Amino acid sequence: MSTDQPTVPASVADQAALGSGADMWTTKAVGDVPSLFVTDGPHGLRKQTGDTDNLGIGGSVPATCFPPAVGLAQSWDADLVERVGRALGEECQAEGVSVLLGPGVNIKRDPRCGRNFEYYSEDPLLSGALGAAWVRGVQSQGVGASLKHYAANNTETDRMRSSSNVDPRTLREVYLRPFQRVVEDAQPWTVMCAYNRINGVYASEDRWLLTDVLRGEWGFEGAVVSDWGAVRDRVAAVSAGLDLEMPGGGDTDADVVAAVEAGGLDPAVVELAATRVAALAAKGVAGRRSDVVLDVDAHHALAREVAARCVVLLKNDGAVLPLAPGSSVAVIGAFAQAPRFQGGGSSHVNPTRVDVPLDEIRRHAPSATFAAGFTTDGSGDAAALRAEAVAAAGAAESAVLFLGLAADQESEGFDREHIEIPAEQVELLAAVLQAQPRTAVVLSHGGALRLAPLAGAPALLDGALLGQAGGAAVADVLFGAVNPSGRLAETAPTRLEDTPAFLNFPGERSQVYYGEGLHVGYRWYDARDAAVGFPFGHGLSYTSFEHRDLTVSASEAGITASVAVVNTGERAGREVVQFYVSVPGSSVTRPVRELKGFASLDLEPGAEGRVEVLLRAADLSYWDVAADRWVLESGEYEVTVGASSRDLRASATVAVTGDETPVPFTPESTLGEVLADAAGAEAFGGLLTGVFGSSESSEDALGMDMAKMMASIPLERFVSLSGGKLTRAGLADKLAEVNAAR
Amino acid sequence: MSTDQPTVPASVADQAALGSGADMWTTKAVGDVPSLFVTDGPHGLRKQTGDTDNLGIGGSVPATCFPPAVGLAQSWDADLVERVGRALGEECQAEGVSVLLGPGVNIKRDPRCGRNFEYYSEDPLLSGALGAAWVRGVQSQGVGASLKHYAANNTETDRMRSSSNVDPRTLREVYLRPFQRVVEDAQPWTVMCAYNRINGVYASEDRWLLTDVLRGEWGFEGAVVSDWGAVRDRVAAVSAGLDLEMPGGGDTDADVVAAVEAGGLDPAVVELAATRVAALAAKGVAGRRSDVVLDVDAHHALAREVAARCVVLLKNDGAVLPLAPGSSVAVIGAFAQAPRFQGGGSSHVNPTRVDVPLDEIRRHAPSATFAAGFTTDGSGDAAALRAEAVAAAGAAESAVLFLGLAADQESEGFDREHIEIPAEQVELLAAVLQAQPRTAVVLSHGGALRLAPLAGAPALLDGALLGQAGGAAVADVLFGAVNPSGRLAETAPTRLEDTPAFLNFPGERSQVYYGEGLHVGYRWYDARDAAVGFPFGHGLSYTSFEHRDLTVSASEAGITASVAVVNTGERAGREVVQFYVSVPGSSVTRPVRELKGFASLDLEPGAEGRVEVLLRAADLSYWDVAADRWVLESGEYEVTVGASSRDLRASATVAVTGDETPVPFTPESTLGEVLADAAGAEAFGGLLTGVFGSSESSEDALGMDMAKMMASIPLERFVSLSGGKLTRAGLADKLAEVNAAR
Repeated sequence: MSTDQPTVPASVADQAALGSGADMWTTKAVGDVPSLFVTDGPHGLRKQTGDTDNLGIGGSVPATCFPPAVGLAQSWDADLVERVGRALGEECQAEGVSVLLGPGVNIKRDPRCGRNFEYYSEDPLLSGALGAAWVRGVQSQGVGASLKHYAANNTETDRMRSSSNVDPRTLREVYLRPFQRVVEDAQPWTVMCAYNRINGVYASEDRWLLTDVLRGEWGFEGAVVSDWGAVRDRVAAVSAGLDLEMPGGGDTDADVVAAVEAGGLDPAVVELAATRVAALAAKGVAGRRSDVVLDVDAHHALAREVAARCVVLLKNDGAVLPLAPGSSVAVIGAFAQAPRFQGGGSSHVNPTRVDVPLDEIRRHAPSATFAAGFTTDGSGDAAALRAEAVAAAGAAESAVLFLGLAADQESEGFDREHIEIPAEQVELLAAVLQAQPRTAVVLSHGGALRLAPLAGAPALLDGALLGQAGGAAVADVLFGAVNPSGRLAETAPTRLEDTPAFLNFPGERSQVYYGEGLHVGYRWYDARDAAVGFPFGHGLSYTSFEHRDLTVSASEAGITASVAVVNTGERAGREVVQFYVSVPGSSVTRPVRELKGFASLDLEPGAEGRVEVLLRAADLSYWDVAADRWVLESGEYEVTVGASSRDLRASATVAVTGDETPVPFTPESTLGEVLADAAGAEAFGGLLTGVFGSSESSEDALGMDMAKMMASIPLERFVSLSGGKLTRAGLADKLAEVNAAR
Repeated sequence: MSTDQPTVPASVADQAALGSGADMWTTKAVGDVPSLFVTDGPHGLRKQTGDTDNLGIGGSVPATCFPPAVGLAQSWDADLVERVGRALGEECQAEGVSVLLGPGVNIKRDPRCGRNFEYYSEDPLLSGALGAAWVRGVQSQGVGASLKHYAANNTETDRMRSSSNVDPRTLREVYLRPFQRVVEDAQPWTVMCAYNRINGVYASEDRWLLTDVLRGEWGFEGAVVSDWGAVRDRVAAVSAGLDLEMPGGGDTDADVVAAVEAGGLDPAVVELAATRVAALAAKGVAGRRSDVVLDVDAHHALAREVAARCVVLLKNDGAVLPLAPGSSVAVIGAFAQAPRFQGGGSSHVNPTRVDVPLDEIRRHAPSATFAAGFTTDGSGDAAALRAEAVAAAGAAESAVLFLGLAADQESEGFDREHIEIPAEQVELLAAVLQAQPRTAVVLSHGGALRLAPLAGAPALLDGALLGQAGGAAVADVLFGAVNPSGRLAETAPTRLEDTPAFLNFPGERSQVYYGEGLHVGYRWYDARDAAVGFPFGHGLSYTSFEHRDLTVSASEAGITASVAVVNTGERAGREVVQFYVSVPGSSVTRPVRELKGFASLDLEPGAEGRVEVLLRAADLSYWDVAADRWVLESGEYEVTVGASSRDLRASATVAVTGDETPVPFTPESTLGEVLADAAGAEAFGGLLTGVFGSSESSEDALGMDMAKMMASIPLERFVSLSGGKLTRAGLADKLAEVNAAR
C-alpha cells in the first residue's frame, strides 16, 4: 500500500478492538491508530446530528441531494458520475467525513426490490462502469468509498438471513461483475459485505468471497467492512477476511481474543485485519483537508445539471414536447408541489434546498396553472380533485401531469408486491386526456413501473428520482432548455408476470433461487423474444441521430468499435451510443446480445462526430465453470451499435483470438468429445464399431440413430459396456497417449 | 417380505457376484439363487433374439406394441393403464421374462427431451397415478416392474454425466413425487436408478436417494437396479444402496470384494444387496407360469381399444368430425400409409402387426382416395406431391391429413432443438385448406409441438404415439365409432420461447439448473398468466358435458370431492373430470392450482352420473424445507372442477385441519416472527421502543417506515445493535421462556 501506516498495536486485544467500531459512525482510536468518521451515502451525506443512537436514526446535517443511483444511471455517463463523486468528496471534507458509504452496484434483478433506487442498473457493465467513476470522483478528494453491498444482495425481504442461491457462472458474470470492475478500475478504500447469504454462506463469513475472490483474484487492497449489523459471528467473519465490524457497541472484540487464546483463530489473521483498519485510518488522516467549505449554490447547480441529464424522454408522439416557453400550461399532480426526489432509508439526505417543479415551470411559463389532481395519502375528495384538474387541463394549451410513487410506497427495508402506478393517478390521466390531448406525464419513482396504463399519454418523461434539483431539471427539459439524453438503465416491463424473476422473488424460508440465471433484464426478454414496455437503453431526444460507418478491429486489449454519429435534426443534442456484442458460435449459452461499451457525445444540428470505445477483452470473456476461470473464446464476435437494446442500427463482425486451452481428456470424457479431436479419433475411433458392430442393423432394431446415443457415453462406461474389449488400464494408457499428442 | 427367500451365499465374492448381471439381460445364478431374465419395456416387450451383444442392439421377438406412455397418458384412465399392464405381464409370462423395465414416470420438464414419449406427463399426480396402475397390472401377473428412471432424469443430452440441479422442495413435489406414489401404492419389484446426477451426486451413488428416501421414507422393499451402464463406481453404488448393476460383463464384483477386504465397505451392506437380489430372483421363480401363450389377436384388440381412448380431439370447428361413414374422403400424408406409432431406442418394439390408417379408413369409407403429399426424407418432387394432394382433397367431400414427426426427428439418445412441425407439412396443409376447408389433421409425435401453424385446420386430432393399432383407432374416432375422450397430459405451448425451461435446457458443461422450480408445465403458464396453445387437460368430445353440484368435504384422509356430470349432447361419450386445488392463504408459494384428482365416466345422451374422488391429504401437503418433511397446512382449500386446467366449471372451498407444528424460536428468528406470536410479543415487545425510541421521529429522518425494517432483523443481531440493552445471555433466557410458553 502506498499510504504511510501507523504502528499497529501489538496486543491481540488492541488489534481486536480496531476491528469493530466505537459507535455508530466512528472507528476506535487505539494506540497510534486514529479514529475515522464515516457516514451513509451514496447520493449525498447523511451525517447524523445530535445523539447518534445505535441504529443511526436521527436528523442529519444539510447536504446536497444529488440524483440517487436510479436516476444517475440514466445519464449513461461515467464522466458526469465522476463529477458527482468529486462534489460528494468535497462535502465529506467540509464535514470531516473520511469514508462515504457508496456506491451500491447490486444488480436490479427484480423491479420489486425496495432498494433498487440505490442501484444503477440491470446490466453489470453499466453498473460497474458508473460505480467505478463514482469511486474515482469521491476518492480524488481524499475521501474513501465503500463499495456495497458485496454481494448478491438483491432483495429487502428477510435480507439479514436470505440466501441468494446462484449458479457459479451467473454469480461471476452478473452479480460479482460490477464489483470486480470497480475494484480493478478504482480500488475503493473499503468494500462493504452484505447482510445476506450466498449459496448458504453469510457474506460476512464467506472466505471465498471476502478473500479468495476479492483480494486473491481482483487485487483489492483496502479494508472489508460489514454492513451495519451484518456480523453474526465475529470470529467466523474475521477468519473469512472481514476487517471491521460496524457499528460498534457489541462485545465481539472479546470473542476474537478468546478465539485466539483457544487456538481457534490465527493471530496473524487478526493482526492483518488490524493492519488494514490502521491503514484505512491513516488514509483518512492523510486525505483530510480542513480548508473545504460546502458551496451550497455551486453544488445545487451541479445537481440540476446532472438531474437534467438523467431525464429519459420515453415517448413524444406529435412532438408534444418541448413546450413553448411562455405558453399556457396546466400543471397537475401532487408531486409538482411536493416532489418525490429520493428514497427512504439509510441513504435519505436532508437536502440543502428543494426545487419545486411548479415554481420552476412558472419560470418558463409564468401563466402556468396548478391542480393537485390526487393526494398520495387518500385524503380529499378524489372526484373533486380530478374535476379541478380536468378543468385546468382543458383551459390550457397543454398539460403536464406529475405522477409516480409516494415515499411510503417503496423504500429500503421492504420489497414492493406489485409494480402498478396508483389507480387514482391512472384514472386522473384518463380524465385529463379527454380534456387535453396535448398532455405530458412526468414520472417519479424509485423502482420500475408497469407503464401500459400511461399508454394514452402522447409524451412521457421518466425522471426516476432526480435529487433536490429535479424540479428545475424537469422544467428545463419540458421547455427545451435542455434536450433530453437520458436512457433507461433498466427495462420497463410489460407486466410483472413477464419479468424474469417473477416466480422466485423474494423467495421463501430464507431461500431465493436465481432461476433465470444469466438472463437478467434485457437478456431475458431478448432470449425469449418477448415484448417489453420500453427497452433497456431507450431514450428519445428533441432531435434525431444517425449512426454511420461502424468499424471494428480486434487486439489483445479487446475489440475497438467506432461509429460516426450525425445529428440529423434541428436542435443540438446528445446521443448515447451503445455497443452490444453477440458470440453466435459460442460453445456456451450466451445472451442474445450484451452491452460491452457505451459513449456519448454532444452534436450541433447537422454536425457529425465519432465515438470510439474499447470493448475490453475481459468483458468479452465468459466464466468457464469447468476451468474455474474467465475464458476468452476464439471466434467471430458480432458488434451491434444501437440507440437502445432494441433500436439496433448496424452490425459488424470481427475475429477474436482467445485464450482457451484444451482441457485434458479424462475417463469421464465422452466418446463424442474424444472423437471430435484428431488425436482422440485416432485412438478411440475403432471402439465404436468394435463394440457395437454395424450401426445400420442397430438402427433397424431400435428405430434410432445409435451414433448420437453412443457419442454421449463417457469413456469409463465402455469398460463394462464393451464386455472386456476395453479395460481400465487400457483406457488409462490410451488417454495418456492422446493427451500427450494434443 | 412375503416371498420365500433362497439361501443367500455366504462368501462376499458370491454375494458380490449376485450384485451384477451375467450379461445384457440376465442376473447370475449363484448357489441356490436362480438367474432372472429381464427385458426392456414399457409399452411392449423388447426381448432380443440371437446374439445378445453388450448394448442390447439386435432384433427382438414380436410383441404387442401398446401406446407408448405419451399416448397412454392421454387416456387419463388408471384402470385402462392397469389392463395394459396385465396384458404386458401375460406377454412376459409367455416369453419367460420376470421383470419388465418400466414404467417411466419422469416429469416432462421440457418438450425437447428426446425421451418424453416414454413418460406420462408434466404433472406429478397424473404420472404417479398412471405409473402405479401400470405396476399393479404387470405385477398382478407374477412379473416384476422396474420403476424408472429414478430420478430427475429429464434430458437426453449428456445424460450420463448431467447434473440435475433442483431445489429441495421442487425435487420433492415435482420430480420425486410420482416415484413416491408408485412405490407407496404399488410396491414395484425393482426401482431403476438413473444415469444422471442430482445436485452433483450420481443417482447410482446417492445414498440419500436410494436408501434414505426410497426405503427409509417410502418403505420400498424391492431391489434397486442400475440403468444400463449407470454405475461408474460399483463400491460407491453398493454403499449408497444399489443392489444390482446392469448389464453384466464388467469386472466390478472384484472391486466389491477388494473394498470389503480393505475395510472400505461394510460387508453387511454387500450381504443385504445380495439378499435383495436373491429375493427378487425368488419372486421371479414363484411368479413364473409356463401355461401362458400370447393371444396376439386379443392383445391387438386391446391395443386398439386403448389407442382409441388415447386420441385427443383438440379442435373441431364446424363439426368437421366425425366424418360420415361411406362418405368421400381424401386421405393425405405419408403417415397414413407408414404410420408413426412408437419411439426409437430401448423401448422400440417389434410389433406383432401394424394397422395402416389408410386401410382402416377404407373400412369406414371404401371410396377414400390417397395422396402422400410429402415425404419424410426429403425425396420426391415436393410441388408435385403437394399438387396431387390438393387435387385429391378438392375432389372429395373432406380431407384427412396425417402429419407429424418422423422417427429420425426424435428418439431416445438426443433432445430436439425445436418443436416445429416440418415446413413441408405446414405448406401442404395450407395448400389443401385452399381446396378443401373440411379438413381434419391427425398428428403423430412423441414430443410436444408448436401447433400454431395448424391453426387454419378446423379439426385436429392428437394421437401422440398410439402403438400398433393406432391406425384402426384413429379411423374409429374419425368416423365416430369411438367418441374421443382423451385429454392432453402435457400443455401444448404457444412457442418454444415461452416454455418454462427454455433458457436452461438441456444445460451445459453437464449442469442443468431447474430454474423454473415448482412451475413446470401448466403451473408455469398459470402463474405467469400466459397464453398456451392448448391447455393441460384439454380434449373435446362429439358430445358435450355439464358439471353440476360440486360438493367437497374434509376428513383426515383428505378432501372428498364429488360432482355430477350430465351428457348434454346427442351421442354417448366419456368425460374426464379434473379436480384442481388452490391454497390461497398458504404460507408458502403455491402454484395457482394443481391437479389433485381425476375420474372419468361414460354417459349416454341425456344421462347424468356422479364421480367422487378423494384428494389425498398427502397430495395436498407441501414439502417444508425448514422442517424437512411434508406439511399439511391448516386453512381454506379451494377445489375447482374442470374439463381442462383452463376450462374450469365450478369451485368450492373447504377448511382443512393440518398437521403443522410450531417451530421453536431461535436467535435467528426475526423480531417480526416473535412479535407475531402472543408469547413472543410479550417477551420482546419492549425491545423495539426500548432500542429505537419513537418511530415517528425516525420515519422523519429516514423517510421510511422503520417498523418494516426492524421486523426483518434476527434477534441475535440486536445484541450488537441495541448497544448493550440486550445481551446474549438475556436473549437465550427470553427465548427459552417464550418457547416454553407456546
